[in-house]
Amino acid sequence: MTEDLIAAAREAMSRAYAPYSGFAVGAAVRADNGKIYSGCNVENSAYPEGLCAEAAAIAAMVNAGAQKIDEVCVMGRGDSLVTPCGGCRQKIREFAAGSTAIHVCGPEGIRRTTTLDELLPLSFGPENLK
Amino acid sequence: MTEDLIAAAREAMSRAYAPYSGFAVGAAVRADNGKIYSGCNVENSAYPEGLCAEAAAIAAMVNAGAQKIDEVCVMGRGDSLVTPCGGCRQKIREFAAGSTAIHVCGPEGIRRTTTLDELLPLSFGPENLK
Amino acid sequence: MTEDLIAAAREAMSRAYAPYSGFAVGAAVRADNGKIYSGCNVENSAYPEGLCAEAAAIAAMVNAGAQKIDEVCVMGRGDSLVTPCGGCRQKIREFAAGSTAIHVCGPEGIRRTTTLDELLPLSFGPENLK
Amino acid sequence: MTEDLIAAAREAMSRAYAPYSGFAVGAAVRADNGKIYSGCNVENSAYPEGLCAEAAAIAAMVNAGAQKIDEVCVMGRGDSLVTPCGGCRQKIREFAAGSTAIHVCGPEGIRRTTTLDELLPLSFGPENLK
Repeated sequence: MTEDLIAAAREAMSRAYAPYSGFAVGAAVRADNGKIYSGCNVENSAYPEGLCAEAAAIAAMVNAGAQKIDEVCVMGRGDSLVTPCGGCRQKIREFAAGSTAIHVCGPEGIRRTTTLDELLPLSFGPENLK
Repeated sequence: MTEDLIAAAREAMSRAYAPYSGFAVGAAVRADNGKIYSGCNVENSAYPEGLCAEAAAIAAMVNAGAQKIDEVCVMGRGDSLVTPCGGCRQKIREFAAGSTAIHVCGPEGIRRTTTLDELLPLSFGPENLK
Repeated sequence: MTEDLIAAAREAMSRAYAPYSGFAVGAAVRADNGKIYSGCNVENSAYPEGLCAEAAAIAAMVNAGAQKIDEVCVMGRGDSLVTPCGGCRQKIREFAAGSTAIHVCGPEGIRRTTTLDELLPLSFGPENLK
Repeated sequence: MTEDLIAAAREAMSRAYAPYSGFAVGAAVRADNGKIYSGCNVENSAYPEGLCAEAAAIAAMVNAGAQKIDEVCVMGRGDSLVTPCGGCRQKIREFAAGSTAIHVCGPEGIRRTTTLDELLPLSFGPENLK
């Protein structure tokens, strides 16, 4: 099953629109409905208006009617671990539990599996606004 | 055909995750492959990390392998016109021509049809970075 | 007076942190208290987490206790007009009237003076949320 | 010295423009030049176009010519810890070392002192783009 998630992230990575950074990223989430939603980064000439791959995958999930993430896969190239940026960790936070698995992948597969709690400890969240 | 686009935006609007603003928005784009891609807004407890509906629709398009927008529909409720925010106009700009039609809709249908050039004149774009 | 605004934008431009785009931008706003607040772009390795110069200038204004913009100057290099991106037009919108002057500048001075209404017609704004 | 940082964040918090969330946040950073720069959140009716307090403080620092953060203070109200959101952790990451102290404060003072490494482990950063 996680293999399907990785494959979805890999395919998304191949669709990245990253003419400015040249850094393609793909992401996929498995929702609590069992389905997989994917996304790639979508850059913009006004850099802050760009979109990360994880945000795209989450948006696809929500637009399909699901609002709970059970598993995440993020894939990028290079020797360094391509973990979700802080902004994406926050976006995942809105729809996932602390124990949700996040697979940090290279094109060849999983390099490290971690959790949301490990990547975004002491998180800011909906509770703060109540 | 534009009716399909409007219907897609309406369905997307019904999936919006907007617990903070209570303001649901749906968007749909028709790509140059003839297909329609839609998205809804996806808010976040850290407000700047939220996503507009147009961004979600564009991300779906790019993730499907298309990179050219031929027509846009944005839908929201209320008496005021729910036009794309400036950020979304910029996001559309990256993938559309100035003459691209943008339909500003309420739940009942089109309220006004405009173009990217009308909504984002004298735009900043990829040319600026060359 | 506008000369002071331009000078402030020029100085801000010299402080830009733009290692990724190499595209330095400076901005300055004159608030209704008569004071000038400036900012430069602050990029981030996670591109969407970067900040435009206009956003920085507005943040400086608000942090000083002012919430009304009377005049804006944006400065960048290159042959093309460096107008505010759509996101920045939206940010200006929150604190300015439609008639607010926006000076689009190159390092040598004003290239074009326009207004918020011209740059962001039919804008989305606080009224939409009521 | 940290008291000055906390006082700056408190004053910034009082200037927050947060009409949508009603959640005021103040932040202050001490740069390696020994000076303190502060900022408050600046919301926008198009929520994703808003700005967090930490981003504003960093922008003030960069606009003053400094590019290295030595200490951070974030302040908000409520019973929960108001830690930086993921996006702000990423923004701090661009200008700080992993060991940089981050003070999470309530109006009464420090509630918890942590570090960037603790808040954003396994971070994405400039190295990934090389």
